[in-house]
Amino acid sequence: MTRCRFCGGSPAYVIEHAGMSLCKDCFIKYYEKKVYKTILKHGMLKDADKVAVAVSGGKDSVALLKVLHRMASERFPSISLVAVHINLGIPGYSDRCQAVVEDVCRSLGVNYLIYDLGREEGYTIPDLRSTALGRRICGACGTVKRYLMNKLAYEVEADRLATGHNLDDTVELLLEFYLRGSVEEIIRVKPVAWSNHPKLVTKIKPLIELTERENLYYVMAQGLPILETECPLAKGSRMLRRKKLIDMIEREIPGFKHTFYKSHLKRLLPKLEQAVEEPELAE
Amino acid sequence: MTRCRFCGGSPAYVIEHAGMSLCKDCFIKYYEKKVYKTILKHGMLKDADKVAVAVSGGKDSVALLKVLHRMASERFPSISLVAVHINLGIPGYSDRCQAVVEDVCRSLGVNYLIYDLGREEGYTIPDLRSTALGRRICGACGTVKRYLMNKLAYEVEADRLATGHNLDDTVELLLEFYLRGSVEEIIRVKPVAWSNHPKLVTKIKPLIELTERENLYYVMAQGLPILETECPLAKGSRMLRRKKLIDMIEREIPGFKHTFYKSHLKRLLPKLEQAVEEPELAE
Repeated sequence: MTRCRFCGGSPAYVIEHAGMSLCKDCFIKYYEKKVYKTILKHGMLKDADKVAVAVSGGKDSVALLKVLHRMASERFPSISLVAVHINLGIPGYSDRCQAVVEDVCRSLGVNYLIYDLGREEGYTIPDLRSTALGRRICGACGTVKRYLMNKLAYEVEADRLATGHNLDDTVELLLEFYLRGSVEEIIRVKPVAWSNHPKLVTKIKPLIELTERENLYYVMAQGLPILETECPLAKGSRMLRRKKLIDMIEREIPGFKHTFYKSHLKRLLPKLEQAVEEPELAE
Repeated sequence: MTRCRFCGGSPAYVIEHAGMSLCKDCFIKYYEKKVYKTILKHGMLKDADKVAVAVSGGKDSVALLKVLHRMASERFPSISLVAVHINLGIPGYSDRCQAVVEDVCRSLGVNYLIYDLGREEGYTIPDLRSTALGRRICGACGTVKRYLMNKLAYEVEADRLATGHNLDDTVELLLEFYLRGSVEEIIRVKPVAWSNHPKLVTKIKPLIELTERENLYYVMAQGLPILETECPLAKGSRMLRRKKLIDMIEREIPGFKHTFYKSHLKRLLPKLEQAVEEPELAE
Protein backbone atom coordinates (compact mmCIF):
# COMPACT_ATOMS: atom_id res chain seq x y z
CA MET A 1 0.00 0.00 0.00
CA THR A 2 1.17 3.52 -0.79
CA ARG A 3 2.42 5.46 2.25
CA CYS A 4 3.47 9.06 2.81
CA ARG A 5 6.91 9.45 1.22
CA PHE A 6 8.25 11.43 4.17
CA CYS A 7 6.72 9.97 7.35
CA GLY A 8 5.20 6.66 6.20
CA GLY A 9 1.78 7.81 7.40
CA SER A 10 -1.52 7.63 5.60
CA PRO A 11 -1.29 9.53 2.29
CA ALA A 12 -3.75 12.31 1.53
CA TYR A 13 -2.40 13.89 -1.66
CA VAL A 14 -0.62 12.59 -4.76
CA ILE A 15 2.01 14.88 -6.31
CA GLU A 16 1.94 13.40 -9.79
CA HIS A 17 4.89 15.17 -11.38
CA ALA A 18 7.12 14.11 -8.48
CA GLY A 19 5.61 10.62 -8.34
CA MET A 20 4.98 10.80 -4.59
CA SER A 21 2.13 10.60 -2.09
CA LEU A 22 2.11 12.73 1.05
CA CYS A 23 0.04 12.88 4.20
CA LYS A 24 -1.65 16.17 5.04
CA ASP A 25 1.00 17.47 7.43
CA CYS A 26 3.92 16.49 5.20
CA PHE A 27 2.16 18.04 2.19
CA ILE A 28 1.84 21.35 4.05
CA LYS A 29 5.55 21.23 4.94
CA TYR A 30 6.52 20.32 1.37
CA TYR A 31 4.36 23.14 -0.04
CA GLU A 32 5.59 25.81 2.35
CA LYS A 33 9.21 24.81 1.85
CA LYS A 34 8.78 25.09 -1.90
CA VAL A 35 7.26 28.57 -1.62
CA TYR A 36 9.97 29.63 0.84
CA LYS A 37 12.71 28.43 -1.51
CA THR A 38 11.11 30.25 -4.44
CA ILE A 39 10.96 33.47 -2.40
CA LEU A 40 14.61 33.18 -1.34
CA LYS A 41 15.91 32.08 -4.73
CA HIS A 42 14.57 35.19 -6.44
CA GLY A 43 15.01 37.60 -3.50
CA MET A 44 11.27 38.30 -3.62
CA LEU A 45 11.01 39.71 -0.09
CA LYS A 46 14.48 41.18 0.22
CA ASP A 47 14.25 44.56 2.01
CA ALA A 48 10.44 44.46 1.76
CA ASP A 49 8.30 46.12 4.43
CA LYS A 50 4.75 45.84 3.22
CA VAL A 51 3.35 43.29 0.80
CA ALA A 52 0.02 43.85 -0.93
CA VAL A 53 -1.50 40.45 -1.76
CA ALA A 54 -3.92 40.35 -4.70
CA VAL A 55 -6.72 38.03 -3.57
CA SER A 56 -9.54 37.14 -5.96
CA GLY A 57 -11.02 34.48 -3.71
CA GLY A 58 -9.97 31.60 -5.99
CA LYS A 59 -7.82 28.73 -4.75
CA ASP A 60 -4.51 30.17 -5.93
CA SER A 61 -4.84 33.55 -4.25
CA VAL A 62 -6.32 32.06 -1.06
CA ALA A 63 -3.35 29.65 -0.91
CA LEU A 64 -1.04 32.61 -1.52
CA LEU A 65 -2.49 34.68 1.30
CA LYS A 66 -2.34 31.77 3.72
CA VAL A 67 1.22 30.79 2.88
CA LEU A 68 2.48 34.39 2.94
CA HIS A 69 0.75 34.89 6.27
CA ARG A 70 2.68 31.91 7.66
CA MET A 71 5.95 33.10 6.11
CA ALA A 72 5.44 36.58 7.55
CA SER A 73 4.74 35.31 11.06
CA GLU A 74 7.43 32.62 11.11
CA ARG A 75 10.25 33.76 8.87
CA PHE A 76 9.82 37.43 7.94
CA PRO A 77 8.45 39.02 11.13
CA SER A 78 9.16 42.59 9.99
CA ILE A 79 6.88 42.30 6.96
CA SER A 80 3.24 43.38 7.09
CA LEU A 81 0.57 42.09 4.73
CA VAL A 82 -2.50 43.71 3.29
CA ALA A 83 -4.94 41.79 1.11
CA VAL A 84 -6.38 43.66 -1.88
CA HIS A 85 -9.55 42.50 -3.59
CA ILE A 86 -11.37 43.93 -6.61
CA ASN A 87 -15.09 43.23 -6.84
CA LEU A 88 -15.53 42.91 -10.60
CA GLY A 89 -19.33 43.18 -10.56
CA ILE A 90 -20.00 39.83 -12.23
CA PRO A 91 -23.53 38.75 -11.14
CA GLY A 92 -23.74 35.54 -9.15
CA TYR A 93 -19.96 35.37 -8.89
CA SER A 94 -18.19 38.52 -7.66
CA ASP A 95 -20.13 38.80 -4.40
CA ARG A 96 -19.28 35.18 -3.54
CA CYS A 97 -15.62 35.89 -4.29
CA GLN A 98 -15.69 38.91 -1.98
CA ALA A 99 -17.34 36.88 0.79
CA VAL A 100 -14.57 34.25 0.61
CA VAL A 101 -11.88 36.95 0.74
CA GLU A 102 -13.48 38.66 3.76
CA ASP A 103 -13.91 35.31 5.47
CA VAL A 104 -10.26 34.23 4.93
CA CYS A 105 -8.82 37.64 5.88
CA ARG A 106 -10.85 37.76 9.09
CA SER A 107 -9.87 34.24 10.08
CA LEU A 108 -6.18 35.01 9.46
CA GLY A 109 -6.36 38.47 11.01
CA VAL A 110 -5.04 40.14 7.84
CA ASN A 111 -6.06 43.70 6.95
CA TYR A 112 -7.89 43.95 3.67
CA LEU A 113 -9.04 46.47 1.14
CA ILE A 114 -12.06 45.87 -1.09
CA TYR A 115 -12.25 47.90 -4.29
CA ASP A 116 -15.68 47.88 -5.89
CA LEU A 117 -15.15 48.37 -9.62
CA GLY A 118 -18.75 49.43 -10.34
CA ARG A 119 -18.89 51.97 -7.50
CA GLU A 120 -15.38 53.40 -8.00
CA GLU A 121 -15.02 53.38 -11.76
CA GLY A 122 -18.63 53.42 -12.93
CA TYR A 123 -18.37 50.20 -14.96
CA THR A 124 -18.19 46.47 -14.26
CA ILE A 125 -16.52 43.65 -16.22
CA PRO A 126 -19.84 42.50 -17.77
CA ASP A 127 -20.23 46.07 -19.12
CA LEU A 128 -17.14 45.44 -21.26
CA ARG A 129 -18.93 42.67 -23.12
CA SER A 130 -20.81 45.11 -25.31
CA THR A 131 -17.61 46.98 -26.25
CA ALA A 132 -14.83 46.12 -28.67
CA LEU A 133 -13.08 44.40 -25.74
CA GLY A 134 -15.98 41.98 -25.28
CA ARG A 135 -14.65 39.33 -27.60
CA ARG A 136 -11.56 38.84 -25.47
CA ILE A 137 -13.16 39.46 -22.12
CA CYS A 138 -10.58 37.53 -20.05
CA GLY A 139 -7.77 39.56 -21.60
CA ALA A 140 -9.58 42.85 -20.93
CA CYS A 141 -10.38 41.81 -17.35
CA GLY A 142 -6.71 40.92 -16.84
CA THR A 143 -5.61 44.34 -18.06
CA VAL A 144 -8.09 46.14 -15.76
CA LYS A 145 -6.94 44.05 -12.79
CA ARG A 146 -3.24 44.56 -13.51
CA TYR A 147 -3.69 48.32 -13.73
CA LEU A 148 -5.88 48.62 -10.62
CA MET A 149 -3.92 46.18 -8.49
CA ASN A 150 -0.76 48.20 -9.05
CA LYS A 151 -2.66 51.43 -8.27
CA LEU A 152 -4.07 50.00 -5.04
CA ALA A 153 -0.73 48.53 -3.94
CA TYR A 154 0.88 51.92 -4.60
CA GLU A 155 -1.84 53.72 -2.62
CA VAL A 156 -1.46 51.48 0.43
CA GLU A 157 2.30 52.15 0.17
CA ALA A 158 3.24 48.53 -0.38
CA ASP A 159 6.71 47.84 -1.77
CA ARG A 160 5.66 44.47 -3.23
CA LEU A 161 2.53 43.24 -4.97
CA ALA A 162 2.16 39.45 -4.67
CA THR A 163 -0.08 37.56 -7.09
CA GLY A 164 -1.19 33.92 -7.13
CA HIS A 165 0.05 33.06 -10.65
CA ASN A 166 0.81 29.35 -10.67
CA LEU A 167 2.86 27.06 -12.89
CA ASP A 168 -0.12 26.21 -15.12
CA ASP A 169 -0.86 29.92 -15.75
CA THR A 170 2.79 30.48 -16.54
CA VAL A 171 3.13 27.56 -18.94
CA GLU A 172 -0.11 28.58 -20.65
CA LEU A 173 1.39 32.02 -21.28
CA LEU A 174 4.74 30.59 -22.37
CA LEU A 175 3.12 28.19 -24.83
CA GLU A 176 1.12 31.05 -26.35
CA PHE A 177 4.06 33.47 -26.53
CA TYR A 178 6.62 30.99 -27.86
CA LEU A 179 4.08 29.73 -30.41
CA ARG A 180 3.52 33.32 -31.62
CA GLY A 181 7.19 34.22 -31.25
CA SER A 182 6.17 37.24 -29.15
CA VAL A 183 9.66 37.92 -27.89
CA GLU A 184 8.72 41.14 -26.06
CA GLU A 185 6.07 39.24 -24.10
CA ILE A 186 8.22 36.16 -23.51
CA ILE A 187 10.82 38.19 -21.64
CA ARG A 188 8.19 39.50 -19.26
CA VAL A 189 7.29 36.01 -18.02
CA LYS A 190 9.35 35.75 -14.84
CA PRO A 191 8.96 35.30 -11.08
CA VAL A 192 9.72 38.95 -10.21
CA ALA A 193 9.02 42.09 -12.21
CA TRP A 194 11.27 44.65 -10.54
CA SER A 195 9.82 48.12 -10.61
CA ASN A 196 11.47 50.49 -13.06
CA HIS A 197 9.14 53.42 -12.41
CA PRO A 198 8.30 55.30 -9.18
CA LYS A 199 4.59 54.55 -9.50
CA LEU A 200 5.06 50.88 -10.30
CA VAL A 201 5.16 48.39 -7.43
CA THR A 202 7.51 45.41 -7.81
CA LYS A 203 5.42 42.32 -8.61
CA ILE A 204 6.26 38.91 -7.21
CA LYS A 205 4.81 35.46 -7.98
CA PRO A 206 5.67 33.21 -5.01
CA LEU A 207 3.53 30.30 -6.37
CA ILE A 208 5.07 30.26 -9.86
CA GLU A 209 6.58 26.78 -9.30
CA LEU A 210 3.41 25.28 -7.77
CA THR A 211 0.70 23.69 -9.89
CA GLU A 212 -3.00 24.56 -9.74
CA ARG A 213 -3.57 21.21 -8.11
CA GLU A 214 -0.96 21.81 -5.41
CA ASN A 215 -2.61 25.14 -4.57
CA LEU A 216 -5.99 23.46 -4.33
CA TYR A 217 -4.52 20.76 -2.06
CA TYR A 218 -3.00 23.44 0.17
CA VAL A 219 -6.30 25.28 0.54
CA MET A 220 -8.03 21.97 1.33
CA ALA A 221 -5.30 20.88 3.76
CA GLN A 222 -5.61 24.18 5.60
CA GLY A 223 -9.40 23.86 5.81
CA LEU A 224 -9.87 27.21 4.05
CA PRO A 225 -13.04 27.97 2.06
CA ILE A 226 -13.06 26.97 -1.60
CA LEU A 227 -15.06 28.93 -4.15
CA GLU A 228 -17.37 26.41 -5.79
CA THR A 229 -18.14 28.55 -8.85
CA GLU A 230 -15.88 29.33 -11.78
CA CYS A 231 -16.09 32.73 -13.42
CA PRO A 232 -19.15 32.52 -15.71
CA LEU A 233 -17.48 34.80 -18.27
CA ALA A 234 -14.43 32.52 -18.64
CA LYS A 235 -16.45 29.44 -19.61
CA GLY A 236 -15.12 27.93 -22.82
CA SER A 237 -12.40 30.59 -23.04
CA ARG A 238 -9.23 29.96 -24.98
CA MET A 239 -7.30 30.15 -21.71
CA LEU A 240 -9.23 27.19 -20.26
CA ARG A 241 -8.91 25.18 -23.49
CA ARG A 242 -5.16 25.82 -23.50
CA LYS A 243 -4.86 24.61 -19.91
CA LYS A 244 -6.56 21.36 -20.89
CA LEU A 245 -4.11 21.02 -23.77
CA ILE A 246 -1.20 21.58 -21.38
CA ASP A 247 -2.50 18.82 -19.09
CA MET A 248 -2.71 16.57 -22.14
CA ILE A 249 0.91 17.34 -23.07
CA GLU A 250 1.95 16.74 -19.44
CA ARG A 251 0.43 13.25 -19.65
CA GLU A 252 2.49 12.51 -22.77
CA ILE A 253 5.67 14.20 -21.50
CA PRO A 254 5.73 13.81 -17.71
CA GLY A 255 7.36 16.86 -16.13
CA PHE A 256 6.54 19.01 -19.17
CA LYS A 257 5.32 22.02 -17.14
CA HIS A 258 8.31 22.15 -14.80
CA THR A 259 10.82 21.44 -17.57
CA PHE A 260 9.45 24.08 -19.93
CA TYR A 261 9.28 26.72 -17.18
CA LYS A 262 12.84 26.00 -16.03
CA SER A 263 14.24 25.89 -19.56
CA HIS A 264 12.58 29.24 -20.21
CA LEU A 265 13.89 30.80 -17.02
CA LYS A 266 17.42 29.45 -17.06
CA ARG A 267 18.28 29.08 -20.72
CA LEU A 268 15.99 30.89 -23.13
CA LEU A 269 15.08 34.03 -21.14
CA PRO A 270 18.71 35.11 -20.47
CA LYS A 271 19.56 34.82 -24.17
CA LEU A 272 16.42 36.61 -25.31
CA GLU A 273 16.90 39.38 -22.76
CA GLN A 274 20.35 40.01 -24.23
CA ALA A 275 18.83 40.56 -27.65
CA VAL A 276 15.66 42.49 -26.76
CA GLU A 277 15.45 45.90 -25.19
CA GLU A 278 12.63 46.34 -22.74
CA PRO A 279 10.34 49.17 -23.78
CA GLU A 280 10.28 52.39 -21.80
CA LEU A 281 7.19 52.72 -19.63
CA ALA A 282 4.79 55.58 -19.97
CA GLU A 283 2.67 56.46 -16.95
CA MET B 1 -20.38 19.03 -52.56
CA THR B 2 -16.73 19.93 -52.05
CA ARG B 3 -14.88 20.88 -55.24
CA CYS B 4 -11.26 21.60 -56.07
CA ARG B 5 -10.53 25.08 -54.70
CA PHE B 6 -8.62 26.10 -57.83
CA CYS B 7 -10.38 24.53 -60.83
CA GLY B 8 -13.71 23.33 -59.41
CA GLY B 9 -12.90 19.77 -60.48
CA SER B 10 -13.22 16.59 -58.50
CA PRO B 11 -11.12 16.85 -55.30
CA ALA B 12 -8.48 14.21 -54.55
CA TYR B 13 -6.61 15.62 -51.54
CA VAL B 14 -7.61 17.65 -48.49
CA ILE B 15 -5.05 20.17 -47.23
CA GLU B 16 -6.32 20.40 -43.66
CA HIS B 17 -4.24 23.30 -42.33
CA ALA B 18 -5.31 25.43 -45.29
CA GLY B 19 -8.91 24.18 -45.17
CA MET B 20 -8.98 23.34 -48.88
CA SER B 21 -9.55 20.42 -51.20
CA LEU B 22 -7.62 20.07 -54.45
CA CYS B 23 -7.79 17.81 -57.47
CA LYS B 24 -4.71 15.84 -58.41
CA ASP B 25 -3.34 18.26 -61.00
CA CYS B 26 -3.97 21.34 -58.88
CA PHE B 27 -2.39 19.65 -55.86
CA ILE B 28 0.77 18.98 -57.88
CA LYS B 29 0.87 22.63 -58.98
CA TYR B 30 0.26 23.84 -55.40
CA TYR B 31 2.99 21.56 -54.03
CA GLU B 32 5.58 22.44 -56.62
CA LYS B 33 4.88 26.16 -56.28
CA LYS B 34 5.36 25.91 -52.54
CA VAL B 35 8.70 24.12 -52.92
CA TYR B 36 9.81 26.60 -55.59
CA LYS B 37 8.95 29.54 -53.33
CA THR B 38 10.82 27.96 -50.40
CA ILE B 39 13.88 27.45 -52.61
CA LEU B 40 13.82 31.06 -53.86
CA LYS B 41 13.02 32.62 -50.48
CA HIS B 42 16.12 31.12 -48.87
CA GLY B 43 18.36 31.22 -51.96
CA MET B 44 18.79 27.46 -51.68
CA LEU B 45 19.98 26.90 -55.24
CA LYS B 46 21.67 30.24 -55.85
CA ASP B 47 24.92 29.63 -57.80
CA ALA B 48 24.55 25.87 -57.31
CA ASP B 49 25.90 23.46 -59.95
CA LYS B 50 25.44 20.01 -58.53
CA VAL B 51 22.93 18.95 -55.89
CA ALA B 52 23.32 15.68 -54.01
CA VAL B 53 19.88 14.48 -52.92
CA ALA B 54 19.76 12.23 -49.84
CA VAL B 55 17.19 9.56 -50.69
CA SER B 56 16.21 6.94 -48.13
CA GLY B 57 13.32 5.56 -50.15
CA GLY B 58 10.67 6.95 -47.77
CA LYS B 59 7.90 9.26 -48.95
CA ASP B 60 9.67 12.50 -48.05
CA SER B 61 12.90 11.82 -49.89
CA VAL B 62 11.13 10.29 -52.91
CA ALA B 63 8.93 13.42 -53.09
CA LEU B 64 12.09 15.54 -52.78
CA LEU B 65 13.89 13.78 -55.61
CA LYS B 66 10.86 14.03 -57.89
CA VAL B 67 10.18 17.70 -57.18
CA LEU B 68 13.87 18.67 -57.52
CA HIS B 69 14.04 16.73 -60.77
CA ARG B 70 11.13 18.81 -62.09
CA MET B 71 12.65 22.04 -60.78
CA ALA B 72 16.00 21.19 -62.38
CA SER B 73 14.50 20.41 -65.78
CA GLU B 74 11.99 23.31 -65.84
CA ARG B 75 13.48 26.13 -63.82
CA PHE B 76 17.16 25.47 -63.09
CA PRO B 77 18.46 23.79 -66.28
CA SER B 78 22.13 24.30 -65.35
CA ILE B 79 21.84 22.22 -62.19
CA SER B 80 22.65 18.50 -62.17
CA LEU B 81 21.30 16.06 -59.61
CA VAL B 82 22.76 12.96 -58.07
CA ALA B 83 20.80 10.79 -55.67
CA VAL B 84 22.72 9.36 -52.71
CA HIS B 85 21.41 6.40 -50.75
CA ILE B 86 22.87 4.63 -47.73
CA ASN B 87 21.92 0.99 -47.26
CA LEU B 88 21.78 0.79 -43.46
CA GLY B 89 21.76 -3.04 -43.30
CA ILE B 90 18.46 -3.36 -41.43
CA PRO B 91 17.07 -6.83 -42.26
CA GLY B 92 13.72 -6.91 -44.06
CA TYR B 93 13.83 -3.13 -44.52
CA SER B 94 17.02 -1.68 -46.00
CA ASP B 95 16.96 -3.80 -49.17
CA ARG B 96 13.40 -2.72 -49.87
CA CYS B 97 14.42 0.91 -49.38
CA GLN B 98 17.28 0.50 -51.83
CA ALA B 99 14.99 -1.15 -54.39
CA VAL B 100 12.59 1.83 -54.23
CA VAL B 101 15.47 4.29 -54.66
CA GLU B 102 16.87 2.41 -57.66
CA ASP B 103 13.41 2.15 -59.17
CA VAL B 104 12.66 5.88 -58.78
CA CYS B 105 16.09 7.00 -59.99
CA ARG B 106 15.88 4.82 -63.07
CA SER B 107 12.40 6.00 -63.94
CA LEU B 108 13.48 9.66 -63.56
CA GLY B 109 16.82 9.11 -65.28
CA VAL B 110 18.76 10.47 -62.29
CA ASN B 111 22.27 9.24 -61.52
CA TYR B 112 22.56 7.57 -58.15
CA LEU B 113 25.14 6.34 -55.72
CA ILE B 114 24.44 3.49 -53.29
CA TYR B 115 26.63 3.33 -50.18
CA ASP B 116 26.45 -0.01 -48.41
CA LEU B 117 27.18 0.68 -44.74
CA GLY B 118 28.02 -2.94 -43.86
CA ARG B 119 30.37 -3.41 -46.81
CA GLU B 120 32.09 -0.01 -46.60
CA GLU B 121 32.30 0.52 -42.86
CA GLY B 122 32.14 -3.02 -41.50
CA TYR B 123 29.06 -2.40 -39.33
CA THR B 124 25.32 -1.95 -39.83
CA ILE B 125 22.75 0.03 -37.83
CA PRO B 126 21.44 -3.12 -36.05
CA ASP B 127 25.04 -3.71 -34.87
CA LEU B 128 24.76 -0.48 -32.85
CA ARG B 129 21.97 -1.95 -30.75
CA SER B 130 24.39 -3.91 -28.61
CA THR B 131 26.54 -0.80 -27.96
CA ALA B 132 26.02 2.16 -25.64
CA LEU B 133 24.26 3.87 -28.57
CA GLY B 134 21.61 1.16 -28.74
CA ARG B 135 19.20 2.82 -26.37
CA ARG B 136 18.86 5.81 -28.63
CA ILE B 137 19.17 4.00 -31.92
CA CYS B 138 17.32 6.63 -34.02
CA GLY B 139 19.65 9.33 -32.73
CA ALA B 140 22.75 7.24 -33.48
CA CYS B 141 21.44 6.35 -36.95
CA GLY B 142 20.80 10.05 -37.61
CA THR B 143 24.37 10.92 -36.64
CA VAL B 144 25.83 8.21 -38.88
CA LYS B 145 23.67 9.36 -41.81
CA ARG B 146 24.51 13.04 -41.31
CA TYR B 147 28.24 12.31 -41.28
CA LEU B 148 28.18 9.93 -44.26
CA MET B 149 25.78 11.98 -46.37
CA ASN B 150 28.08 14.98 -46.10
CA LYS B 151 31.09 12.81 -46.94
CA LEU B 152 29.37 11.34 -50.01
CA ALA B 153 28.10 14.72 -51.20
CA TYR B 154 31.64 16.09 -50.82
CA GLU B 155 33.10 13.15 -52.73
CA VAL B 156 30.73 13.54 -55.69
CA GLU B 157 31.70 17.25 -55.67
CA ALA B 158 28.21 18.49 -54.99
CA ASP B 159 27.85 22.07 -53.76
CA ARG B 160 24.50 21.36 -52.08
CA LEU B 161 23.15 18.43 -50.10
CA ALA B 162 19.32 18.35 -50.18
CA THR B 163 17.41 16.38 -47.53
CA GLY B 164 13.71 15.57 -47.23
CA HIS B 165 13.15 17.05 -43.76
CA ASN B 166 9.52 18.10 -43.59
CA LEU B 167 7.52 20.42 -41.36
CA ASP B 168 6.59 17.63 -38.92
CA ASP B 169 10.26 16.65 -38.46
CA THR B 170 11.13 20.27 -37.89
CA VAL B 171 8.39 20.96 -35.36
CA GLU B 172 9.27 17.74 -33.53
CA LEU B 173 12.84 19.01 -33.17
CA LEU B 174 11.72 22.51 -32.20
CA LEU B 175 9.36 21.19 -29.51
CA GLU B 176 12.14 19.08 -28.04
CA PHE B 177 14.79 21.81 -28.16
CA TYR B 178 12.57 24.63 -26.84
CA LEU B 179 11.29 22.33 -24.09
CA ARG B 180 14.87 21.57 -23.04
CA GLY B 181 16.03 25.14 -23.65
CA SER B 182 18.83 23.76 -25.86
CA VAL B 183 19.71 27.13 -27.35
CA GLU B 184 22.74 25.85 -29.28
CA GLU B 185 20.54 23.25 -30.99
CA ILE B 186 17.59 25.59 -31.54
CA ILE B 187 19.71 27.93 -33.66
CA ARG B 188 20.68 25.08 -35.96
CA VAL B 189 17.05 24.40 -36.97
CA LYS B 190 16.76 26.33 -40.23
CA PRO B 191 16.08 25.76 -43.93
CA VAL B 192 19.70 26.20 -45.04
CA ALA B 193 22.90 25.37 -43.16
CA TRP B 194 25.52 27.31 -45.11
CA SER B 195 28.88 25.60 -45.12
CA ASN B 196 31.50 27.20 -42.91
CA HIS B 197 34.20 24.61 -43.57
CA PRO B 198 35.81 23.46 -46.85
CA LYS B 199 34.81 19.83 -46.29
CA LEU B 200 31.22 20.63 -45.31
CA VAL B 201 28.61 20.78 -48.04
CA THR B 202 25.82 23.38 -47.66
CA LYS B 203 22.66 21.57 -46.58
CA ILE B 204 19.23 22.60 -47.85
CA LYS B 205 15.74 21.46 -46.81
CA PRO B 206 13.39 22.34 -49.69
CA LEU B 207 10.42 20.52 -48.08
CA ILE B 208 10.68 22.23 -44.69
CA GLU B 209 7.30 23.96 -45.14
CA LEU B 210 5.51 20.84 -46.40
CA THR B 211 3.83 18.38 -44.04
CA GLU B 212 4.42 14.63 -44.04
CA ARG B 213 0.95 14.23 -45.45
CA GLU B 214 1.58 16.63 -48.32
CA ASN B 215 4.72 14.71 -49.24
CA LEU B 216 2.78 11.46 -49.19
CA TYR B 217 0.09 13.01 -51.41
CA TYR B 218 2.73 14.21 -53.87
CA VAL B 219 4.28 10.76 -54.15
CA MET B 220 0.82 9.26 -54.66
CA ALA B 221 -0.21 11.92 -57.16
CA GLN B 222 2.95 11.26 -59.17
CA GLY B 223 2.33 7.52 -59.16
CA LEU B 224 5.73 6.86 -57.57
CA PRO B 225 6.38 3.75 -55.44
CA ILE B 226 5.58 3.99 -51.73
CA LEU B 227 7.52 1.98 -49.19
CA GLU B 228 4.93 -0.02 -47.29
CA THR B 229 7.17 -0.80 -44.30
CA GLU B 230 8.28 1.54 -41.55
CA CYS B 231 11.74 1.16 -40.08
CA PRO B 232 11.43 -1.76 -37.62
CA LEU B 233 13.98 -0.14 -35.27
CA ALA B 234 11.96 3.09 -34.96
CA LYS B 235 8.81 1.37 -33.70
CA GLY B 236 7.59 2.95 -30.47
CA SER B 237 10.47 5.48 -30.56
CA ARG B 238 10.20 8.79 -28.76
CA MET B 239 10.35 10.51 -32.13
CA LEU B 240 7.18 8.75 -33.32
CA ARG B 241 5.39 9.39 -30.01
CA ARG B 242 6.31 13.08 -30.24
CA LYS B 243 4.93 13.28 -33.77
CA LYS B 244 1.61 11.90 -32.54
CA LEU B 245 1.63 14.51 -29.79
CA ILE B 246 2.26 17.24 -32.37
CA ASP B 247 -0.71 16.04 -34.42
CA MET B 248 -2.80 16.16 -31.25
CA ILE B 249 -1.70 19.75 -30.58
CA GLU B 250 -2.44 20.64 -34.22
CA ARG B 251 -6.01 19.39 -33.76
CA GLU B 252 -6.41 21.67 -30.71
CA ILE B 253 -4.58 24.63 -32.25
CA PRO B 254 -5.17 24.52 -36.01
CA GLY B 255 -2.11 25.83 -37.82
CA PHE B 256 0.16 25.01 -34.87
CA LYS B 257 2.94 23.47 -36.99
CA HIS B 258 3.15 26.31 -39.49
CA THR B 259 2.78 29.01 -36.82
CA PHE B 260 5.46 27.56 -34.55
CA TYR B 261 7.91 27.05 -37.42
CA LYS B 262 7.39 30.58 -38.73
CA SER B 263 7.59 32.17 -35.28
CA HIS B 264 10.83 30.30 -34.71
CA LEU B 265 12.31 31.31 -38.06
CA LYS B 266 11.22 34.93 -38.14
CA ARG B 267 11.12 36.01 -34.52
CA LEU B 268 12.91 33.71 -32.08
CA LEU B 269 15.83 32.47 -34.18
CA PRO B 270 17.14 35.96 -35.12
CA LYS B 271 17.13 37.02 -31.45
CA LEU B 272 18.75 33.81 -30.22
CA GLU B 273 21.39 33.96 -32.96
CA GLN B 274 22.36 37.42 -31.70
CA ALA B 275 22.98 36.04 -28.23
CA VAL B 276 24.61 32.69 -29.03
CA GLU B 277 27.90 32.15 -30.79
CA GLU B 278 27.99 29.18 -33.11
CA PRO B 279 30.70 26.74 -32.06
CA GLU B 280 33.79 26.33 -34.22
CA LEU B 281 33.78 23.12 -36.22
CA ALA B 282 36.47 20.53 -35.87
CA GLU B 283 37.01 18.18 -38.79
